Amino acid sequence: MKYGVVGFSGRMGKEIIETFKEKGHELVYMLDIENELVDGEPQVILDFSRPEAVKKTVEVCKKYKAALVIGTTGLGEQELEMIRELSREVPVIQSYNFSVGVHAMRKIVKLLSGILKDWDVEIVETHHRFKKDAPSGTAILLKEAIDREIPVHSLRVGGIPGDHLVIFGDVGEVLEIKHRALSRRTFALGALKAAEFLLNVGKPGMYDFEEIIFGGG
Amino acid sequence: MKYGVVGFSGRMGKEIIETFKEKGHELVYMLDIENELVDGEPQVILDFSRPEAVKKTVEVCKKYKAALVIGTTGLGEQELEMIRELSREVPVIQSYNFSVGVHAMRKIVKLLSGILKDWDVEIVETHHRFKKDAPSGTAILLKEAIDREIPVHSLRVGGIPGDHLVIFGDVGEVLEIKHRALSRRTFALGALKAAEFLLNVGKPGMYDFEEIIFGGG
Amino acid sequence: MKYGVVGFSGRMGKEIIETFKEKGHELVYMLDIENELVDGEPQVILDFSRPEAVKKTVEVCKKYKAALVIGTTGLGEQELEMIRELSREVPVIQSYNFSVGVHAMRKIVKLLSGILKDWDVEIVETHHRFKKDAPSGTAILLKEAIDREIPVHSLRVGGIPGDHLVIFGDVGEVLEIKHRALSRRTFALGALKAAEFLLNVGKPGMYDFEEIIFGGG
Amino acid sequence: MKYGVVGFSGRMGKEIIETFKEKGHELVYMLDIENELVDGEPQVILDFSRPEAVKKTVEVCKKYKAALVIGTTGLGEQELEMIRELSREVPVIQSYNFSVGVHAMRKIVKLLSGILKDWDVEIVETHHRFKKDAPSGTAILLKEAIDREIPVHSLRVGGIPGDHLVIFGDVGEVLEIKHRALSRRTFALGALKAAEFLLNVGKPGMYDFEEIIFGGG
Repeated sequence: MKYGVVGFSGRMGKEIIETFKEKGHELVYMLDIENELVDGEPQVILDFSRPEAVKKTVEVCKKYKAALVIGTTGLGEQELEMIRELSREVPVIQSYNFSVGVHAMRKIVKLLSGILKDWDVEIVETHHRFKKDAPSGTAILLKEAIDREIPVHSLRVGGIPGDHLVIFGDVGEVLEIKHRALSRRTFALGALKAAEFLLNVGKPGMYDFEEIIFGGG
Repeated sequence: MKYGVVGFSGRMGKEIIETFKEKGHELVYMLDIENELVDGEPQVILDFSRPEAVKKTVEVCKKYKAALVIGTTGLGEQELEMIRELSREVPVIQSYNFSVGVHAMRKIVKLLSGILKDWDVEIVETHHRFKKDAPSGTAILLKEAIDREIPVHSLRVGGIPGDHLVIFGDVGEVLEIKHRALSRRTFALGALKAAEFLLNVGKPGMYDFEEIIFGGG
Repeated sequence: MKYGVVGFSGRMGKEIIETFKEKGHELVYMLDIENELVDGEPQVILDFSRPEAVKKTVEVCKKYKAALVIGTTGLGEQELEMIRELSREVPVIQSYNFSVGVHAMRKIVKLLSGILKDWDVEIVETHHRFKKDAPSGTAILLKEAIDREIPVHSLRVGGIPGDHLVIFGDVGEVLEIKHRALSRRTFALGALKAAEFLLNVGKPGMYDFEEIIFGGG
Repeated sequence: MKYGVVGFSGRMGKEIIETFKEKGHELVYMLDIENELVDGEPQVILDFSRPEAVKKTVEVCKKYKAALVIGTTGLGEQELEMIRELSREVPVIQSYNFSVGVHAMRKIVKLLSGILKDWDVEIVETHHRFKKDAPSGTAILLKEAIDREIPVHSLRVGGIPGDHLVIFGDVGEVLEIKHRALSRRTFALGALKAAEFLLNVGKPGMYDFEEIIFGGG
């Protein structure tokens, strides 16, 4: 596929470019805060950068009729609205996390929250010292699945790619669900899966990453 | 209720007696390797002792037409057969673990094993230095739920009441499910719930602890 | 020994009474918010209650010339000053934690903090839902040993007796030190060790729990 | 520096080449099971490959009077003897782990093993599914520091670069020390530090990685 990357000089931007290159895809568009490099017409744009970039990303997608895979965290209601609006014109997937394991985790903490109704629940997320937003997008995604008002603790330590812990506790026992990303590669592969899905489906709309990996239900 | 305890002088025997006493139940029968104390007709027998005791426990249940809650671990096929045979005469619940959390864990590792088919899975269980059988009954129960040939590692350390970890790992990410019993009280309360269920249902048969706590399905 | 307990109706008060009774010691004085029961002259007072109790505890120690073992957490400078002043008249041990493991942990996190100077450090402490002060006294004790301005996260979940995690992280690796109390019994046994030490030493002064268990250095 | 890599096509070989290249060092010698590529005279050889390679590695070092940094695991007495013998001619560092954190861990588990004499101890090591030797060299290094006969459990799961857990447990409490490598980069940087040290010291002999990073004592 011909693809473009917003935030190409950032950590995730580089990871996406390396992963997509290995799989034989063609990078034709790059954007960051200082440069715009155009080398063809992208079929899909990948944006894992900063909320401030959303506006320009949406413009680029409209211009090229390109699908959008967006994994930027820290989005506000305004940015989410721009993305939803774009999805009337092109196929879009927005998620705070593009790993299979986190979406499996989401499924089970939702189930447990329904079963263990009178247990206490808290979330702890740990990321590298360079991460700016807190709590992480993934912690927000997990909290929404649990659907209760619970504390979220954010640790920023060394080079940790991303740990998420949900702890359920009753008076006599504790049940912990813990996810750990080993590298950003995982997220780049998930983004590739999402991009392939969007090109395949072809029609405008908001698509759900969880549905792509696990199927409906 | 009027109840009896097999293995009354052991760790779990004592915990059951203390917990049931607090709830106002009447201890009318006690058995261990040296003594048999009878003070009435038990409606239900609780046995969390050793596999060698099963034969005598079954006789006692038959004699008094008493229901049976059995949590003994390390059972062989012969003991399981004696228990199944007893269930044609009285109501019986047999489980390797009587906590809500472990059965919730069983549910989700079963689900995950279906979703994360090409991930590696291993189990680690950690118990106090006095535990004789290995792997723990709970580890066996979890392994059956996962339904694959996987390694189980048994640690025996200090006074740990019982930790169970199931680790799922792919090349780029790891998902861990960890249960931790805080005290034996949890298991005694689960046994009480099971005993109450059996007295209520009244009819002979093998009943499932998971069904009691979560309902059918 | 003849001993007294301040906060005798609380969780730790009950644990101390049970543990000391098993070892054959004589309870001659009990105080809580509503009652004062005197049945002899205590040689040592144990107080694991609330900061508000310190004033009265100090008076009681002075009246009976009794040694003091105090494990109350959440103390302010005013209460610490009262305790120091008391130590001019009787032998005193004050610590936020009376377990061997936590003091071993204190020793090693101090060592690590000196070696791993440019690594990030954070603390996570998890306690039962009934614990009122945060961060825990033990977390404060660990933070002082690390001697840097670092975040401390407090979780309150179910019936956890007390977990403490110190996480050190560099760009390429992580080192975690984790302590877990299995029951309050550990703290009661540590308090007994402290009380025996004080009766033995006899002379007024502030004594250090770490020195008692590991010796000088 | 001019350096050579034995096992240049393996995981660690590639990581070393990438890391040393970034720092401006010159790769002049490469060896693996099929190829030998010579492009100059190496001052130091790095070998993180397989025990079978040791014999040839030693020959190469002798031929070029090159220092040796060897991190190969699964070494037998025979290979260790060859390495010791080489150290009479050139400077050598042999270690099963080249990270700062593991050596800090070694220091503290040694200390704890001396303090917590009657606590139980076990080791758990977890690595990626491609690792062939078990237990890991690092687990052996930790077990030697603890200096007791203790169980070591080896898990092989997904893509985990290397986790090591030492668990100390008493009846009432547990103390865990856990190290986690985030990527092989950590080990490559440690190997570079070792290589620089050897070139600097110049004289034949066996040098200790722990001494290099923490200094004497």
